[in-house]
This record gives sequence, structure tokens and C-alpha cells, in this order.
Amino acid sequence: MTNKVLFLPGDGIGPDIIAQTERVLRRADESFSLGLEFDEAKVGGAAIDATGVPLPDDTMAKAREADGILLGAVGGPKWDALDMAVRPEKGLLGLRSGLGLFGNLRPAFLYPQLAEASSLKPEVVSGLDILIVRELTGGIYFGEPRGIQTREDGEREGFNTYRYSESEIRRIGRVAFESARQRNKKVCSIDKANVLEVTVLWREVMEELAKDYPDVELSHMYVDNAAMQLVRAPKQFDVIVTGNMFGDILSDEAAMLTGSIGMLPSAALNESKQGMYEPCHGSAPDIAGQDLANPLATILSGAMMLRYSLGYEQAADAIEKAVSDVLDQGLRTPDIHFEGTRKVGTNEMGEAVLAALDKRL
Amino acid sequence: MTNKVLFLPGDGIGPDIIAQTERVLRRADESFSLGLEFDEAKVGGAAIDATGVPLPDDTMAKAREADGILLGAVGGPKWDALDMAVRPEKGLLGLRSGLGLFGNLRPAFLYPQLAEASSLKPEVVSGLDILIVRELTGGIYFGEPRGIQTREDGEREGFNTYRYSESEIRRIGRVAFESARQRNKKVCSIDKANVLEVTVLWREVMEELAKDYPDVELSHMYVDNAAMQLVRAPKQFDVIVTGNMFGDILSDEAAMLTGSIGMLPSAALNESKQGMYEPCHGSAPDIAGQDLANPLATILSGAMMLRYSLGYEQAADAIEKAVSDVLDQGLRTPDIHFEGTRKVGTNEMGEAVLAALDKRL
Ligand SMILES: [Mg+2]
Ligand SMILES: [Mg+2]
Repeated sequence: MTNKVLFLPGDGIGPDIIAQTERVLRRADESFSLGLEFDEAKVGGAAIDATGVPLPDDTMAKAREADGILLGAVGGPKWDALDMAVRPEKGLLGLRSGLGLFGNLRPAFLYPQLAEASSLKPEVVSGLDILIVRELTGGIYFGEPRGIQTREDGEREGFNTYRYSESEIRRIGRVAFESARQRNKKVCSIDKANVLEVTVLWREVMEELAKDYPDVELSHMYVDNAAMQLVRAPKQFDVIVTGNMFGDILSDEAAMLTGSIGMLPSAALNESKQGMYEPCHGSAPDIAGQDLANPLATILSGAMMLRYSLGYEQAADAIEKAVSDVLDQGLRTPDIHFEGTRKVGTNEMGEAVLAALDKRL
Repeated sequence: MTNKVLFLPGDGIGPDIIAQTERVLRRADESFSLGLEFDEAKVGGAAIDATGVPLPDDTMAKAREADGILLGAVGGPKWDALDMAVRPEKGLLGLRSGLGLFGNLRPAFLYPQLAEASSLKPEVVSGLDILIVRELTGGIYFGEPRGIQTREDGEREGFNTYRYSESEIRRIGRVAFESARQRNKKVCSIDKANVLEVTVLWREVMEELAKDYPDVELSHMYVDNAAMQLVRAPKQFDVIVTGNMFGDILSDEAAMLTGSIGMLPSAALNESKQGMYEPCHGSAPDIAGQDLANPLATILSGAMMLRYSLGYEQAADAIEKAVSDVLDQGLRTPDIHFEGTRKVGTNEMGEAVLAALDKRL
């Protein structure tokens, strides 16, 4: 049985959006008789405030037990002055590495109802549907050695190490090729192989791997060019695969192309399909607790969790359709609101999804 | 006297666009009696083909002598299979580090005549005027140790080192703060200080430096958020300052926001104002030698060179106005062509700028 769901509300708007998602998942649990077991724990700034560390042992233990983890968001200016080792973000990094969640799926799609929200011309983005596969437990965010040291000449210098091994590259490559098989059969691998040796190896391994997937077309692009092409003609991409840091930058850029980052879910999976799910947007501490946050990306993350980690395809579908229904009804949180639609708060949006879900059954 | 100009046509469309720029600079030289001395040398793939290395000693010697260097572009698939040490791009990196060209100025502005060319909505980009100040001789592109090695367990791994010292950060910071003083007095420093120690030091040094520029407003942004904000609301930025790799990615993204990267010049300066100037676009080998390339970014780079390294403000102004004149005339190379304008080739565009320059005198 794979039925354990762990909520990690975290910081900022995290609790606001997790509360709505919990309601939706509990309703789906009842309606589809899934027999889910729910639990909750602290992570990030909330955990620092309560225990002094961003990822308490108790949270890590619950996370190991869970089949699917639903995270709100972590971080905020309140904890910015803290030492790197105890920053809220370390909680997230610790969960990813502790559970081996190396495969980050970041879809960037545009709901037709929200095409207006994009800062790009409609013809450039309408129908956009990219999947960015980002390596999540290696690369420069985890590489050693790292730190700030005083050199012999008395000057301080900071340093980090960008490192990938063949097996790390191969396993994320497989995620990309296999995802592409279920989509448009195109993988674009992003590197900086004209300058960085670590990405020369990356490109080499991707080329090797491509031989196992003759039905998938592999291309390569330098990261600076990719940042441009996403602006110029984003629909040229199907699946993009890249390392941790480049993936961080490009997946956020791609998400923003849609103009509605408050809509985008994400998944981080390990080899046994255990996964952590979270919205792409951040903790937005400036609007926390004010009934202003958009809960839809988190609700859609919950649906992704039901599909990928728990295996409840039907319930996942129902939730996704319910979200599309509320958009059809013209309901919009402030981040996606424009003229001619009705502005609603976090709570009302959650309730509307519940009602739409009930109607779908 | 600072009058020595060195042309480095390089690869792909490099020779096409340098040829037109040389004509314009020679005309400006005559018309304004500047007494410029012109020379030419090989770099990149062209140098590899002729001598086996991307930066021959003769080229480096001429570059040291020059006051201003005008580069076309380097690189192309022809040399992609070569070892990293002798790739065309190494020629460029060698010039930058050999001459200490640490300060890269990458303006991203939108000519009103070309607003249509952007993939963004006109209201999002019209009036865009950002200056990205990118550190160019440090960071991960130059950091040691680097390479691909076989570990004890038999697996290969690639590694690079992201490294900055306080003095490197301080000197690029000064370029940014001083540029901001002549613009809208806002500097946004981009880092990933929530994860990378090297950028924790970066942020710290920028904060210290800000005390010397009380008239300039300093803000900080994470690189992934910056990649988003450039898409969402690019006009929020005045001067952006960042390291080599982040600057590579963000300056290309910012350039593409304009939709007319064929228009954007760039400068790389050292502390004695010696500079290398080049268009932001690449070597576009697919259209090389076909009279299809847009020479305007290179011509504008020539104007920047007259202004920043040679001190001929009046001649620089005249060239820039001549470029605006040809846009007013409706002339467009294929990359910036749209309905209602007249498509012209590289050569005709160069001639039109010469004619406009003559008229301006
Ligand atoms: Mg990010
Ligand atoms: Mg670049």
C-alpha cells in the first residue's frame, strides 16, 4: 500500500496554500475511497523557529515513511541573516538529498484561460507545453569543496564546486528520454560544453544514452542560448534536460513565460517513485496569511502526487479538471486576475475547487 | 595618442559584419580626421585553421598594442569536436584574460523602430533600457581546478570551480555603481546567496561598496528570480551587476527581450580603458558569407569603441545617429525584417549607414 501523505506547509504563504490542498485531497480521499493517511511536519523557517534547525530529525523520519510529500514553500527575509547551514532552504536541500529525489519534473504549460496573463505575445506562447527535467541532488548546489576562506595574501575568496559523475548524468537522462517517449519524443539537453568540462561529460553521456532511445530525437543547446530561445520561440521545446543550477534558472524562466507561475506544479522523484511535490512559486512572505495566495499550483501538485507516487490516476484527473472548471467560471486569485474575471481569495478559490470536484463525481 | 584599432573578424558571419564596420570606421576616420591606424589579425576557428591554435602569439601581441579591438564572432560546428583547449571560444577567453578585460558592458535597449520584433508585448518592453555589467575574467569559466577525471571507483566525473575573491568582486562592483550614476542610479546585484557560498561573499562585498555610493540604490536578487523578472517586468531594472556565468545567461536573455539581438553592441574593458568590442549575437555559421547578416550591432560596437576607448564622442554620436536613420528609412536585414519594411542584405545595410553618415556631416 502506498497511501502515506505528509504535508510540509513551511513558510510564508506555505500554510495558506497547503490548507486548501489538504481540503481538496481529503475530499478526493473520501470520494474515491483511497484510504490515504495524512500527517504533517515542520520544515524551513518554521522548523528553525520551533527547533533551531531547518530540517528536524522528526520531519526527516516522517518524510522517509511517506509515499508522497506535499510541500508549501520555504524561506523569507526573517531568516536571511542566518548562517548558510541553518537557512530555510537547507531544509529543502536536505529532503531532496536525504530521499534521493534526483529527478525534478517542472512542467511549463499555459492554460488557455490564462493566455492573457503572459507578458509574451499570445502567438508566441499559446499552446505552450514544455517539460523541464532538472537534476536535483548533484551539481554545484551540492558540490564539495565549498566555502569562504582567507587566502595567504590576506584576501577572502568564496568557492563552490560544480561536479557530476557519469551515473548521475545517466539516471537523470533516462528520466528525460522516458518522459519524452510519452510526449513529443524530443529531448534538448542544455549545457555549456564550450567552456565547462563538467558539461562536456554531460553532453557525452547524453549522446551515449540516446542510442538506447532511437525513437527520441536528442539535440544540444548552450545554456545562454537556451535562456534566449525560451524568450524567442519557447514552443520549439518538448522535454528539456539539464543540471541542477541551469535547471533552476531555466525552469523558472520557462514558468514565467506562462505569466501564471501560481498555476504550475512540480515533482521531485527518486528511483522508487517516492516523491516530493510543491508549487513552482516561492513563499511570498509579503502576502502570507492574507488570503491572497493562489492555491492552484499546490492543488495541482497534489494531483501530480496522486498520479506519480500514489497511483490514483482517476482522482488526479478529477482534481485537474476541477481546477480547469474554476478557471472556466472566471475565478482568479490576484496574481492571475485581469479585467472581466472575478477576483477571489485563497479560501474561496479552495472552496470553488471542492465544489467543482463534487460536481465532477 | 590612442588611435590603434585592431579588427578580429573571426568565424562565421564575423568577416561579413566586420567588413561593413571597417568601411564605416574608415569613413568616420576621414570625415573627422581622427588619424586612426587599422590592423587585422586572426582569432578563433579562423586562427585554428591557419595556425593550429585559437589565439596565435601574433594576434595577442597586436591586441596588446591596440587601443580598441573590434571582434566579429568566433566558433561554429566545424570546430565543435576539437579538444576544449583549442576550441575557438578559447581565443576569446584568452584575449579577455590576457588583456584583463574584466568589465563587460551589455546594454539591452529597444529601438522604437523595432518594437514589433520583440516576442514580448509592446507595453512590457517599449522603452526598455537595461545595462548589464558582467564580470568577465573570473568565476567558474576560469576557476581551477577543472577537468574530467576517473575516480577510484572507475567512474568518470567532470568538475569546475566557481571562485571569486573580494578584489575581483569590488572592481566589477565599482564599474556597476559608476555606470548607474550616469543612468537611473539603481544597481541590482544578482547572486544565489541562499545556496552558493561564493555568492554570499559577492553580496557582502556589494553591500560594503554601496556605502561609497550613497546616491545609488542597491538591491539584490537571486539568479533564478532574475531570469523570471526579466520576462515578467524587465523595465524594473536599470543596471544589473553579476558574475561571469550568471551574466552570460542573463545578458543573453535580456538581449533577446528586445527581439533584435542583431542590434546590440557590447564592450569589455580593463582598468586603463583598453577595450574589446563585439556584437552580442554569435557567429551564425549557417548564414555566413551569404550577405544575410545584420552588421548594425558591430557598427554600433565600433561607435562604442570610439566613445569608451578612443575618446571620439562626436564620431561615435554620428555613427549611432546614422544607424537610427537607416532604421527610419525602413531598411531591415532578414533578422529584423517584418511587413512594411524593406529587406536588405549585409552590404546594402553597410552602404546605407555610410550614406546616412555622410548626410549627418
Ligand atoms: Mg528556483
Ligand atoms: Mg553568451
